[in-house]
Amino acid sequence: MNIEDKDSFAKLDTDRKRRTGFNEVVFCQSKNDDFLLEIFSKLYSLNGEVLGTRASEHQAKLIQKKFPDALYDSISGIIKIEKKDKKSEGLIAVCTAGTADIPVAEEAALTAEFFGTKVKRYYDIGVSGIHRLINVLPEIEKANAVIAIAGMEGALASVIGGLVSVPVIAVPTSVGYGANLGGLSALLTMINSCANGISVVNIDNGYGAAYIATQINRLAVHGSVKQN
Amino acid sequence: MNIEDKDSFAKLDTDRKRRTGFNEVVFCQSKNDDFLLEIFSKLYSLNGEVLGTRASEHQAKLIQKKFPDALYDSISGIIKIEKKDKKSEGLIAVCTAGTADIPVAEEAALTAEFFGTKVKRYYDIGVSGIHRLINVLPEIEKANAVIAIAGMEGALASVIGGLVSVPVIAVPTSVGYGANLGGLSALLTMINSCANGISVVNIDNGYGAAYIATQINRLAVHGSVKQN
Amino acid sequence: MNIEDKDSFAKLDTDRKRRTGFNEVVFCQSKNDDFLLEIFSKLYSLNGEVLGTRASEHQAKLIQKKFPDALYDSISGIIKIEKKDKKSEGLIAVCTAGTADIPVAEEAALTAEFFGTKVKRYYDIGVSGIHRLINVLPEIEKANAVIAIAGMEGALASVIGGLVSVPVIAVPTSVGYGANLGGLSALLTMINSCANGISVVNIDNGYGAAYIATQINRLAVHGSVKQN
Amino acid sequence: MNIEDKDSFAKLDTDRKRRTGFNEVVFCQSKNDDFLLEIFSKLYSLNGEVLGTRASEHQAKLIQKKFPDALYDSISGIIKIEKKDKKSEGLIAVCTAGTADIPVAEEAALTAEFFGTKVKRYYDIGVSGIHRLINVLPEIEKANAVIAIAGMEGALASVIGGLVSVPVIAVPTSVGYGANLGGLSALLTMINSCANGISVVNIDNGYGAAYIATQINRLAVHGSVKQN
Amino acid sequence: MNIEDKDSFAKLDTDRKRRTGFNEVVFCQSKNDDFLLEIFSKLYSLNGEVLGTRASEHQAKLIQKKFPDALYDSISGIIKIEKKDKKSEGLIAVCTAGTADIPVAEEAALTAEFFGTKVKRYYDIGVSGIHRLINVLPEIEKANAVIAIAGMEGALASVIGGLVSVPVIAVPTSVGYGANLGGLSALLTMINSCANGISVVNIDNGYGAAYIATQINRLAVHGSVKQN
Amino acid sequence: MNIEDKDSFAKLDTDRKRRTGFNEVVFCQSKNDDFLLEIFSKLYSLNGEVLGTRASEHQAKLIQKKFPDALYDSISGIIKIEKKDKKSEGLIAVCTAGTADIPVAEEAALTAEFFGTKVKRYYDIGVSGIHRLINVLPEIEKANAVIAIAGMEGALASVIGGLVSVPVIAVPTSVGYGANLGGLSALLTMINSCANGISVVNIDNGYGAAYIATQINRLAVHGSVKQN
Amino acid sequence: MNIEDKDSFAKLDTDRKRRTGFNEVVFCQSKNDDFLLEIFSKLYSLNGEVLGTRASEHQAKLIQKKFPDALYDSISGIIKIEKKDKKSEGLIAVCTAGTADIPVAEEAALTAEFFGTKVKRYYDIGVSGIHRLINVLPEIEKANAVIAIAGMEGALASVIGGLVSVPVIAVPTSVGYGANLGGLSALLTMINSCANGISVVNIDNGYGAAYIATQINRLAVHGSVKQN
Amino acid sequence: MNIEDKDSFAKLDTDRKRRTGFNEVVFCQSKNDDFLLEIFSKLYSLNGEVLGTRASEHQAKLIQKKFPDALYDSISGIIKIEKKDKKSEGLIAVCTAGTADIPVAEEAALTAEFFGTKVKRYYDIGVSGIHRLINVLPEIEKANAVIAIAGMEGALASVIGGLVSVPVIAVPTSVGYGANLGGLSALLTMINSCANGISVVNIDNGYGAAYIATQINRLAVHGSVKQN
Repeated sequence: MNIEDKDSFAKLDTDRKRRTGFNEVVFCQSKNDDFLLEIFSKLYSLNGEVLGTRASEHQAKLIQKKFPDALYDSISGIIKIEKKDKKSEGLIAVCTAGTADIPVAEEAALTAEFFGTKVKRYYDIGVSGIHRLINVLPEIEKANAVIAIAGMEGALASVIGGLVSVPVIAVPTSVGYGANLGGLSALLTMINSCANGISVVNIDNGYGAAYIATQINRLAVHGSVKQN
Repeated sequence: MNIEDKDSFAKLDTDRKRRTGFNEVVFCQSKNDDFLLEIFSKLYSLNGEVLGTRASEHQAKLIQKKFPDALYDSISGIIKIEKKDKKSEGLIAVCTAGTADIPVAEEAALTAEFFGTKVKRYYDIGVSGIHRLINVLPEIEKANAVIAIAGMEGALASVIGGLVSVPVIAVPTSVGYGANLGGLSALLTMINSCANGISVVNIDNGYGAAYIATQINRLAVHGSVKQN
Repeated sequence: MNIEDKDSFAKLDTDRKRRTGFNEVVFCQSKNDDFLLEIFSKLYSLNGEVLGTRASEHQAKLIQKKFPDALYDSISGIIKIEKKDKKSEGLIAVCTAGTADIPVAEEAALTAEFFGTKVKRYYDIGVSGIHRLINVLPEIEKANAVIAIAGMEGALASVIGGLVSVPVIAVPTSVGYGANLGGLSALLTMINSCANGISVVNIDNGYGAAYIATQINRLAVHGSVKQN
Repeated sequence: MNIEDKDSFAKLDTDRKRRTGFNEVVFCQSKNDDFLLEIFSKLYSLNGEVLGTRASEHQAKLIQKKFPDALYDSISGIIKIEKKDKKSEGLIAVCTAGTADIPVAEEAALTAEFFGTKVKRYYDIGVSGIHRLINVLPEIEKANAVIAIAGMEGALASVIGGLVSVPVIAVPTSVGYGANLGGLSALLTMINSCANGISVVNIDNGYGAAYIATQINRLAVHGSVKQN
Repeated sequence: MNIEDKDSFAKLDTDRKRRTGFNEVVFCQSKNDDFLLEIFSKLYSLNGEVLGTRASEHQAKLIQKKFPDALYDSISGIIKIEKKDKKSEGLIAVCTAGTADIPVAEEAALTAEFFGTKVKRYYDIGVSGIHRLINVLPEIEKANAVIAIAGMEGALASVIGGLVSVPVIAVPTSVGYGANLGGLSALLTMINSCANGISVVNIDNGYGAAYIATQINRLAVHGSVKQN
Repeated sequence: MNIEDKDSFAKLDTDRKRRTGFNEVVFCQSKNDDFLLEIFSKLYSLNGEVLGTRASEHQAKLIQKKFPDALYDSISGIIKIEKKDKKSEGLIAVCTAGTADIPVAEEAALTAEFFGTKVKRYYDIGVSGIHRLINVLPEIEKANAVIAIAGMEGALASVIGGLVSVPVIAVPTSVGYGANLGGLSALLTMINSCANGISVVNIDNGYGAAYIATQINRLAVHGSVKQN
Repeated sequence: MNIEDKDSFAKLDTDRKRRTGFNEVVFCQSKNDDFLLEIFSKLYSLNGEVLGTRASEHQAKLIQKKFPDALYDSISGIIKIEKKDKKSEGLIAVCTAGTADIPVAEEAALTAEFFGTKVKRYYDIGVSGIHRLINVLPEIEKANAVIAIAGMEGALASVIGGLVSVPVIAVPTSVGYGANLGGLSALLTMINSCANGISVVNIDNGYGAAYIATQINRLAVHGSVKQN
Repeated sequence: MNIEDKDSFAKLDTDRKRRTGFNEVVFCQSKNDDFLLEIFSKLYSLNGEVLGTRASEHQAKLIQKKFPDALYDSISGIIKIEKKDKKSEGLIAVCTAGTADIPVAEEAALTAEFFGTKVKRYYDIGVSGIHRLINVLPEIEKANAVIAIAGMEGALASVIGGLVSVPVIAVPTSVGYGANLGGLSALLTMINSCANGISVVNIDNGYGAAYIATQINRLAVHGSVKQN
């Protein structure tokens, strides 16, 4: 590979915002240092803000050296440079079954907040202690979308789905051991849910769930812009 | 089993409408005749309308004998008794990759229409002839949610996801042969989609996709009712 | 195969009762007519009662012709010749998520009753309408063991497991479609349950669950006989 | 995540003892140091005893620094602070097929002992040398429940199941290589067992098996408390 | 396809006997009538005897019409025209776990007998009643090779393997239901056996096991012919 | 193993060039140092050029010490000693869905160039931004074969397959996470493609795709040599 | 679904010939009668010839009633209306491992012939009798592409791949039983082939292999048209 | 676990030699140092010789410190203390497809030699260069049993099986990448082999194959001892 052509490989999709309503986000994992810095710089100069997911401590320090305002959350691996005047709107709920699911939950919550969505967190409310969920249900019902995150106990989404009127985006996590099959078992549980209103994203994909929840939240707040 | 207690087994969930905004729907497949008629009768007297999915020709005739107004679509297996004055609102798009995916698409479209959602259909626009999708894109962009249905070619959802600003609900179908694994291959394609805004429901679950699309459509049309 | 030696193939295990506390039971499925009748006759003459599982209508008629007192339940496929003076003891609860799980539930309930265990049934109390389970919980808590039967929604066992103090035997069923993988998805959900006190038997194995629940029930009623 | 709210994430379930008869247990694996110490401290002050599973050497030292009475077993990863006056009751048997299954067996045995159950161990009695099992059978028969632990050779549970009158809780282990599929093969063997009285927990889940065996042992010793 | 060239498609391997010591055998399943008769005729004129496996009742009648001496066993689907003066030599043992495994066992036994091997049958000696196996062990030990056939309970091979000094050829069967995965679970059990001396053939492949057992039996009776 | 016979184990296939038109290539991964150097030396003296794939940095240095002209590409792990006067002919296109697929793409591109094929690269043109592919399509159409490389988004091959008239060799990559199953999901997507003209090689097998593309390119440039 | 719009669902792709060099082909399986006839008629009027795959006897009669010149091959399910003056060019070889693979082979051969490619057939040359392949190798070597079709024995492609200089398109078939997993085992064998020059299409996809072989054959006969 | 009882866990099976003809062998992997040394010492004092498999360099040094005569082969991980006067008898052939399969092959070869079997090695004779196998076939034909070892190319066993008259024990290896599924693909290839006389052991189980080959070799050399 002629290394001079390198940045032609990453074709920044500058039309994306107009088409989809979202700026491009950087999936940091396994990107090399030079390349990562370059993308951050370009996106920052284009949009005045950047969101990176799955960033290591090393990558965070690298970016923070150049962009001292960048905030890094070591639990979720989110790194972001945010605009000062950012407002949040609407409401979504991010729920987890256990404490081990929190890294995925924070990837979801911080992403949604970056996209301008107001977020409330309900962690460790899994179905093996159903009263924990029942207690916070009146709060969860106020959200425009619910993200339900669970690993070995993929059942959380089904129970919530039967109790609320808005879409539930289910995120299986790789948390667990043995026959959890790296999250595949939770994914199958969720896909087979007998409750209505549940759809599923990839294992550990907190980012993806936040994207969809934000799309729904925007529709709830602004209505259908394009139809008019 | 004391057969006299039979109907206690199917606990009709009459509080569901208040809680979730949807009346109960009948999954007809493998229900016996007496039981099916009884559920239809009860739901009709409660709600003045009934939706049944996966109904066989035999079941359709049975129901139509008692409810002559019931409409049956043999392609999707949908049977419904609808209110006269039903209005539709908003807009969703139902898309399929091939003609073989139409039964699932009609399950989705007819369900969404029953739930009061306006539906436009875009069938046989799979990615192996990408111009077919490009041609109808300006229409699809007007929807509040897109249902993307595809079997062996699960790729349709990814392409649409990259082009629109609203949530795409992906429905894998069992259409295909060989390594399609009864739809599991398409499901995995869709779960792994690198496009944003895509979530997935069970194989052939047109009904489930319509439910979610309707939830989103209602939020877009009415905004967040519960938050106020 | 020298067909005259045929019945030597099925070695009736007449010592079983002393060793395990249970008489031999007949798994009728795919046994031919002559062979089935012969086993029923032998077991009847040995024990004065016989339990058969997975019997077809045809097999039921065959057996009832010779044993007019034999009772057949077409939903579960159980056929049994029971002693007149049978008493029942203790209590177990048999629960299902949906109505489609009832055939497996009745296999469990009728088997347990044959083994002398008192049974209460709680059907269609799946987690997508969690109030249904909450309503009957005070009743379920009285049992010495709970059998939790669920197909596409394998989550029922987890929720019950978090609420009761006795063992929960989880039975995945093949009910569902698409990614249910013939019951394997529900099995994986249950094996990965994050609630305590849950163990799992084979898909659709109502009989096996009843056997274990009866073992537990006997220990609760009679204490540890062998230890003395 | 606002880190000050951290401990709200782990909702200690203080009602659990009344509901299920067991205090909460700490799954140490992948919990960070501060969080782990905090949970241990809270549970200790609530209950005067704590059980932790899957603890690393590092975690053990951390806990022992604060609680010098904590006992750590490096083979199983069990760490516990036990009450002085603990009594044990009843009897369960913990059996393994090979020596490599001992870490899981000790997780089971030490957990059951913590819960007040008397335990006897029978290790390395796998079916490839069937005389080893036959020799100890008269001892095993005295237990109220048997835990059968086996990796590549999942067959141990079937053989024991055919010989005893009490429930056998089968624990597949990830021991083995090649087509053992990380324990999934042993799990499938056990789920398909043709012997009666066998139910299965997750791969390597010694803790879960001990919990169930204790439930059964308590019923055998105390009878059905709740029914009265 | 020019249908006149049809029989060129099945290239009879007339050199096979010299190379491998076995004549060609006909796998009847799904072969059409004309083609089947033609192969039987050709092999009969070449070798004076023919063995067919997996033959349906219809195919058996067809062949018996032309070859009245052909013997058909409806349990295993074996059809054979045998030489009058056939002698048998050595000894192999064919064992099954249950009665449902007998069709596969008879395919094995009848094939081995056709190949000139003396066979003893030990059926329904599965490990859930281990005494049944122990009782016949002194007999089984006399064989030059043991075929161990088992479905849901794949454990039979492991137990035998630990008790005898000759090779055990394990045949998983598709007998069972639920998580037996059409025999794959039994196959995995057998492949992972911790006993020595066990190798495995395809699910339900009684024929293949008999072929190998005959190879071993011949070596035991005649020694290594080719080496001299 | 008598270590002196070591090199007899690697039977260099010196007739390969005549038979297949390609010299032997070295798969470096997990080969030890001595062995690797020896093979490189032998192949160099035979052919005056050598291609190695999956070489580590360490292996590259080792080879470059002995062959200073050897070129190493750390992204793909390709190391090669090439003839000075090498000409390239025809044209193939190497396309990737994302930037993370580039290591596999470079393995393909550099291999094809080594084999004398002219290569054009089109990277990061995945279907989630379909305009990127549309823009370069007129260029891609000029190739004699297209290599389509994609990980989580296996859909690239289908879209290209529907647009060009030449064979598309699809290479699934292990890029992705969660339900990507190490590349198996992308492989299944590609095998099930509903577009024509697509065949698939192993996950991450850039080398294999380049080999086939070169075979096709040679046929396009030289016609069928062997037929004349 | 408004049934009047029915034929709008099947968007005939009349630009396909120009873009890809091939007319549209009809996959008959599960298409209903009216729809099938309509597509055949439209394609016939457009192109003067039609190819249908996977046609049942019933469908064949239906088509032949309207198009008496249509030829039907019941082995492969191919039905075609061909132009009188069709010429064939180049050469491909279609090989099978066994006789049971012939239906797939004929789908491939008849399709390739329809597309104007000269075809030679080599059936029943599987690797369990390697001399059969060696004997015809000099013939196979003359082809511009080889289609290697095999079920339980997926090894045929590897052996051919090591012997010829042209691309081998491997087609796994669903032929076999037990652990063949409906063809998936053969597919995995072929994907993992250590021979070069092998790519794989879906299970039983003779049509797809013929399409690719024809693309390659055209390039060999005509060279790269588009590049000039 | 009371650590003083430690060695009671590993129940040395001193009757094994009489029953099976083989002394116990030590599977070293993951055994701790003290335990390993103890087993070696006990077995050495009982039998005057010991075989260990899967030993690490560290373990080898440990054993050699106490038993300076112990020989260690770092490629296969075999460590053995052998009797001086050991004789070898009969003949088996150990074959591999590639050079990467040699570690498994040496585990097989060295084990068989330890058991007193004469071994010839044929490495790197995989089917992608079929002439390599053909060349050594006359030698291989002299063996009493053939061990065929292959990873990504599982086809070697099928080809050999079709050419020899003795049993072929197939060993799949985990060699390969991508869709090799850690050796499972090769295992499936071998289990589905259409050649006769092939049975399969676990992935990478060279030891197990050597055990069976020795059993067969002994029968060929000594005939059936037990029958007399």
